[in-house]
Amino acid sequence: MIEAHTQHLVAYRIALRRIAAALGCEADEEAVVAARQKVESDHLMQQTRTGLLILDHGYAGGAAMSPEEHAAAIRIPQRDVVRLETIAEGFLGASDNVTSWLAAVTNEVEARVRGGAVGVKTIAAYRAGLRLDAPDPSHVASDFGRLHAQAAAGRPVRLEGAPLCHSLLLEAAAACASLGVPLQVHCGFGDPDEDLALVSPLGLRRLFTEPRFAGLKVALLHCYPYHREAAYLASVFPGVYMDLSLAIPMAAHDGARALGEALGLCPISKLLYATDATRYAEVYLVAASLHREALAGALGELVDGLWLTREEAVEAGRDVLARNARRLYRLD
Amino acid sequence: MIEAHTQHLVAYRIALRRIAAALGCEADEEAVVAARQKVESDHLMQQTRTGLLILDHGYAGGAAMSPEEHAAAIRIPQRDVVRLETIAEGFLGASDNVTSWLAAVTNEVEARVRGGAVGVKTIAAYRAGLRLDAPDPSHVASDFGRLHAQAAAGRPVRLEGAPLCHSLLLEAAAACASLGVPLQVHCGFGDPDEDLALVSPLGLRRLFTEPRFAGLKVALLHCYPYHREAAYLASVFPGVYMDLSLAIPMAAHDGARALGEALGLCPISKLLYATDATRYAEVYLVAASLHREALAGALGELVDGLWLTREEAVEAGRDVLARNARRLYRLD
Amino acid sequence: MIEAHTQHLVAYRIALRRIAAALGCEADEEAVVAARQKVESDHLMQQTRTGLLILDHGYAGGAAMSPEEHAAAIRIPQRDVVRLETIAEGFLGASDNVTSWLAAVTNEVEARVRGGAVGVKTIAAYRAGLRLDAPDPSHVASDFGRLHAQAAAGRPVRLEGAPLCHSLLLEAAAACASLGVPLQVHCGFGDPDEDLALVSPLGLRRLFTEPRFAGLKVALLHCYPYHREAAYLASVFPGVYMDLSLAIPMAAHDGARALGEALGLCPISKLLYATDATRYAEVYLVAASLHREALAGALGELVDGLWLTREEAVEAGRDVLARNARRLYRLD
Repeated sequence: MIEAHTQHLVAYRIALRRIAAALGCEADEEAVVAARQKVESDHLMQQTRTGLLILDHGYAGGAAMSPEEHAAAIRIPQRDVVRLETIAEGFLGASDNVTSWLAAVTNEVEARVRGGAVGVKTIAAYRAGLRLDAPDPSHVASDFGRLHAQAAAGRPVRLEGAPLCHSLLLEAAAACASLGVPLQVHCGFGDPDEDLALVSPLGLRRLFTEPRFAGLKVALLHCYPYHREAAYLASVFPGVYMDLSLAIPMAAHDGARALGEALGLCPISKLLYATDATRYAEVYLVAASLHREALAGALGELVDGLWLTREEAVEAGRDVLARNARRLYRLD
Repeated sequence: MIEAHTQHLVAYRIALRRIAAALGCEADEEAVVAARQKVESDHLMQQTRTGLLILDHGYAGGAAMSPEEHAAAIRIPQRDVVRLETIAEGFLGASDNVTSWLAAVTNEVEARVRGGAVGVKTIAAYRAGLRLDAPDPSHVASDFGRLHAQAAAGRPVRLEGAPLCHSLLLEAAAACASLGVPLQVHCGFGDPDEDLALVSPLGLRRLFTEPRFAGLKVALLHCYPYHREAAYLASVFPGVYMDLSLAIPMAAHDGARALGEALGLCPISKLLYATDATRYAEVYLVAASLHREALAGALGELVDGLWLTREEAVEAGRDVLARNARRLYRLD
Repeated sequence: MIEAHTQHLVAYRIALRRIAAALGCEADEEAVVAARQKVESDHLMQQTRTGLLILDHGYAGGAAMSPEEHAAAIRIPQRDVVRLETIAEGFLGASDNVTSWLAAVTNEVEARVRGGAVGVKTIAAYRAGLRLDAPDPSHVASDFGRLHAQAAAGRPVRLEGAPLCHSLLLEAAAACASLGVPLQVHCGFGDPDEDLALVSPLGLRRLFTEPRFAGLKVALLHCYPYHREAAYLASVFPGVYMDLSLAIPMAAHDGARALGEALGLCPISKLLYATDATRYAEVYLVAASLHREALAGALGELVDGLWLTREEAVEAGRDVLARNARRLYRLD
């Protein structure tokens, strides 16, 4: 894929040029790699003009920088979100049954939130899809038994399948509702280990309608190509927020178009800016510039079409780029 | 939702400005409310330049104006469509079994059509979704028994669930086919008590392929975000018509874009103008102006792109705004 | 449909004008039919500036020209793809069981590929939908028994239903992988005997993830309105290619828009030009001109938006119109 096709993505072409421009070099891979080695990541991160980073440190496990190392390397204020599945995998071995496992996870989430985490993130989309039916208790118990035995024996475990992942998601959603922190849910496209047919945010409906989740705030991440569906959810359920994050760099011009489509139903107060960037400062830089331009383009079209005034569009830009997240994650 | 987010919808912003312009006041809520109180609804309705209203009086039950009161208040010719579920709920108590219930509903629909109703409308999308499988007779019987007992005991009943709602829909579709009146089907987005995952018009396929529905005309209402799917149905099945109604005011610029997308596959002769407006004359006014502009914009782009001639676009506008409905509902 | 509505398709209007321009006559049906009768098909086919045709001769059975007759009539180099279901129906009568039937089909495919066929095409979308679950062996056996008996008795057979069609598709996919030829899969919209709800390319996921299909190349045909989903598959799975073929003439301007949307995630190296044209040279001509213009339009927008350089866009055009197919089908 990388050898034969990645270079033929529109997103690759634009990214290469943006990075080259930021580094002041020619827009080819060799020149970029050479120039990049002479620049600190923090220098590029400053160019993203990011006021505050909300970070999920749960992706790469021990191989990643710790939050402290990251905060030292990048001089931008940082807050954490807790990756639900990473925590939950850590308690599989020490928990005797599903109930105690879920309680241990919830306790840990609560402790992390008390310690400053501003939200919880779930990647159930990858592990089980997002069609939230009521998990069958006998499947939950048997799946748990198998993973518990593996973990207790010191073998690596990977939490997956609807019975456990959806039980966990529902429990965490209730915890988030009572803790008052948003639950981030990966929706829509991503890496190939996810079945795109199963990850429409419409499958999350229970979270928005059942009384046990009253007050829950959910941030739907990425959403593409289900962004119109996500925007619908944001338009009818008070707790639903959304972003286009990965879609803006990856789907290039069509990610930008999707942002304009989402603004059809999604209240401006519920659309969030996000990069989905990871590992490399230049990825943040590309996402940050493309996302701002996509937003400016979409809002500019609304002004041209007399849908919004210029003043409303300026305020909308500020809301999407910062204020909505500050309010949602209670950052002030 | 209303306090925190509705004001941040693009649709809200444009609606406020359109109403203010029609009322000749400042575009803020207070000024609009004050100015609105000095104006008759009929005055605003005249500004919509509507030649004839097709109305569903079955929504609010006894709390709404009667057709006669409405006709007296608004000086625009009016025709009724029959809301299927409202009628069907009224016969639950007096019917001993499903067969007699369906027969009673069909008789009533027939009587209403003889009395001047021009179509039948179903909101099965809200009550059961639109994935029309063959209802299981035992579920149909048990659901009916429960609702019948409730209704016979004088308690309020709400018809819902696939067994009864789909049985009713299929029966009504056959009746519409033989009566020669269109069946309007709410598809796509709407209020939050509907699961958007279940309301693609593609689920209605049986209505278009089974011999018992031969000749049936179906008007797919709203459709968004399934409007490309609806347009496909309109392109291959002679009896399928569609509108974007609620999408045009609610999804603002993206509703307008959706109208352009629908014109990809939907024959111009099968696209209908509709407002989904209710209760307030100013909602009709906003929908009427935005819908006309969306149509003009979409057709204008087709002319600019040399897809249609200017003359064809003018005829297309007339077809969509009036002639298609006149032919479909046999209004002349 | 044809009498009342086809003439109201945007696609019909533009097609009529394009054909009339090519024939040098007025753009009305009578003039076009009259002028068309004076022109050889080959003359029109030359105007499509097609370098090589990849043809599926399996559609119309004995009523169609043979490959040899076609090659004699149209002076453009031609290669064949094998229509899987047509071949498979031919072996139903002579095969005693499913295993021998699948083996016979695979042998025939292999022989055809040795004889010069450059790919295999499946229309499972029409016969069974594309949600590829593991076929239930007992259903496979009973369906086979029924069709085998019909065929052995000399009665006409139509292969359909998930058990047989998906067994066949999976077997053929494995054969294509080992033969090194692409499998073309009809996805998305088409004729009304297909249920559009069942033909998203996302249902094909097994073909891209299971080891037995390693190395398989799949060309997703048409895709609309699932083209963003198809583009996603092309972006994460090395073997996935796509085209918009039927969408470009049929969905008119929205087919062109869909092509631009697909270029969001689909690597330019994986997007293919195709017409889905059949029977009439003028259909090829319309599709060829509209497809080139759609591509030019989409790439032009990318240049205007600074997503691609002009040089990259020119190369992209060449890739999509010819080079990608030459590489995928190993035509050089």
